[in-house]
Amino acid sequence: MLTNPRSDRVKAVRALSRRSMRARTGDFLAEGPQAVREAVAFRPDLVRDVYVTPEAAQRHADIVESARVADLWVNEVTPEVLAAMCDTESPQGIAAVCRALDLPLADVLADLPADALVCVLTNVRDPGNAGTVIRGADAAGADAVVVSDASVDVYNSKVVRSTVGSLWHLPISVGASVPEILAALRGRGVRLLAADGAGTTLLHDADLSGAHAWVMGNEAWGLPVEVRDACDDVVRVPIHGHAESLNLAMAATICLYASAEVRRTSR
Amino acid sequence: MLTNPRSDRVKAVRALSRRSMRARTGDFLAEGPQAVREAVAFRPDLVRDVYVTPEAAQRHADIVESARVADLWVNEVTPEVLAAMCDTESPQGIAAVCRALDLPLADVLADLPADALVCVLTNVRDPGNAGTVIRGADAAGADAVVVSDASVDVYNSKVVRSTVGSLWHLPISVGASVPEILAALRGRGVRLLAADGAGTTLLHDADLSGAHAWVMGNEAWGLPVEVRDACDDVVRVPIHGHAESLNLAMAATICLYASAEVRRTSR
Repeated sequence: MLTNPRSDRVKAVRALSRRSMRARTGDFLAEGPQAVREAVAFRPDLVRDVYVTPEAAQRHADIVESARVADLWVNEVTPEVLAAMCDTESPQGIAAVCRALDLPLADVLADLPADALVCVLTNVRDPGNAGTVIRGADAAGADAVVVSDASVDVYNSKVVRSTVGSLWHLPISVGASVPEILAALRGRGVRLLAADGAGTTLLHDADLSGAHAWVMGNEAWGLPVEVRDACDDVVRVPIHGHAESLNLAMAATICLYASAEVRRTSR
Repeated sequence: MLTNPRSDRVKAVRALSRRSMRARTGDFLAEGPQAVREAVAFRPDLVRDVYVTPEAAQRHADIVESARVADLWVNEVTPEVLAAMCDTESPQGIAAVCRALDLPLADVLADLPADALVCVLTNVRDPGNAGTVIRGADAAGADAVVVSDASVDVYNSKVVRSTVGSLWHLPISVGASVPEILAALRGRGVRLLAADGAGTTLLHDADLSGAHAWVMGNEAWGLPVEVRDACDDVVRVPIHGHAESLNLAMAATICLYASAEVRRTSR
């Protein structure tokens, strides 16, 4: 049982709340039962250490059991130690240090099916938005998520939490520039659909057959014109009422689900 | 120019951050340019006072001009006074005291079209979720929003902000009990579709023709079985990947947009 909230080990875990330390170590902290459960279930090879309070070990016995079956280190800690490790105010008694799971862009795009569905996030800054879009991409059955440079770090604790485990469910690439991403997708025969309120094609008129990627922009200012111009089509979700717009996560989810529905009916 | 952050007037506005005071006065505070702009544009009859800093009055001259044209009181205030009035950390220099805009349930349901689309929120507790669903309902062209008792107060500053003005765009009723709401909708010939992960009908198989209401449950525990049983169908959004679920706002938006699309093609 780890009991000292000021130990070097606790400090080393806590330091992962800083992006610079995550970049240097290649590790990040998954906080809370949903994230830890999915990490252990989907990518136990990437889990370095599980930390759990005695109380949470009882409440989430399934996670602890899965972790032990996967030969992972499960460390009992006091609530004070866990709180000192975590960024989240209420980590619900469990957290895990995980290895970064992103893959090079080429690897993520290597094995796409003929009717691939890809979600590209460019310059997304809000952690909750980014995480919710990744969750939506997973739910819609997307084959890959690509996050551009100048976006929020996907290993930020708020992003991880907002994905509710989806971070471990599908291949993800981070850090490439937008031109690199668009060129790589085009090279794989993936059509590029910019999702933007400035689009002239309404979603229900868009061609969603075959391999395509939804390119999403920043939550406040959308996609710059040069990115829109580099795409095959610029598509907007119709606004039927008086709302000025939809937020990024809602628009992305509607677009991804429209694609999923076309894919479902044509498969 | 109001300059004293400790004046009775400032205290009276600030007191509207408490639900009890909103209930007693029938007023609430709309904070930030998006909310104030929509309030002034759509329901100037319900705006009692606009408060604006000199800097924001220049930046949002369109709002101030609309307010003056509508014969509203526009009060210049110092940034300190505005901050003392507002719940939001950065109200962006403008706020307005507004009259509550909800209508009795019977009034909201009185003039529904034959292919009405209604959004019912039951026991929704998170302000951001509630506001985002109201925004999504507006965007999807819903004819009314009905919020049950035991839900978050729609005049909570976080709800108001999350609606991004949609609060003023469509008829809304609050405070009725779930059984009352379902009975009233049924009495108007509106079919009841429960949106719930426990549903056996997939969204793409659901009958979305004619007048219907989407009944959404609490963000954590969904809809209780007695509410699901009281509906005509229980519908779930298909999960194509490994995600455990969608969050409330995403699921609601997908359902509402599926209805909007059926309505668009049949109108």
